[in-house]
Amino acid sequence: MKDAINVKWTGDMAFEAVVDEHRIVMDAKPEVGGKNSGPRPKPLLMVSLAGCTGMDVISILRKMKVEVTGFYMRVIAELTEDHPKRYTAIKLIYEFSGINLPADKLQRAVELSQEKYCGVSATLKDSCEISYEIKINEI
Amino acid sequence: MKDAINVKWTGDMAFEAVVDEHRIVMDAKPEVGGKNSGPRPKPLLMVSLAGCTGMDVISILRKMKVEVTGFYMRVIAELTEDHPKRYTAIKLIYEFSGINLPADKLQRAVELSQEKYCGVSATLKDSCEISYEIKINEI
Repeated sequence: MKDAINVKWTGDMAFEAVVDEHRIVMDAKPEVGGKNSGPRPKPLLMVSLAGCTGMDVISILRKMKVEVTGFYMRVIAELTEDHPKRYTAIKLIYEFSGINLPADKLQRAVELSQEKYCGVSATLKDSCEISYEIKINEI
Repeated sequence: MKDAINVKWTGDMAFEAVVDEHRIVMDAKPEVGGKNSGPRPKPLLMVSLAGCTGMDVISILRKMKVEVTGFYMRVIAELTEDHPKRYTAIKLIYEFSGINLPADKLQRAVELSQEKYCGVSATLKDSCEISYEIKINEI
């Protein structure tokens, strides 16, 4: 199986990608010659990770008949100080809101994503330590 | 050094991230319960890689006083067939357009990014083989 995308330089430090017919702009900060017309590229790696595991978790919870009213993720990555400035560890905080939420099922849904389904976690975890924490807000 | 982002579930299979004050929507295909209101999360990893190395290359070429009139990247990733569907190899095709382009400098700019500066390549390359090719279009 193959997956492919095209990315075009649009001048100065800006680039535009088209993925699934959606346009994604990336740009640098003005301090380094950009115009901040889009996000920096490196944090998109964290966005990719969160989206991939988040969709897994939502699908699994649906199959488990667990209803959440809110679901937030915070992704915190540690970076090296020297070039290449790479991620060395990523922590995912999964925060669920709802009424009488079953902690064991939420834990299981996250575990299934992290251990079995999430392709981005699986791509990253040989080179970057991935850890997670689950928070539950009863409303 | 740390880098952090927040991602919010917005219903069905859709998620919204905010990075450098820019909103990024991700969504699944209708076949799996999504509304295609944004791209799939996994290819964003390729976007992140292309943007990171692309900005390096543009910066390095500027320092080398090399002017390109066009710069495109194609990113082709190989995926496993089974869960977790992860990337195992990524090929980057850097395609430059311009007049009398110096092939050695273009090669050196890409090498410097791949070997020294690109933090996304450095994060991925322990777990995923990264290769590249350079194409030059004289206009």
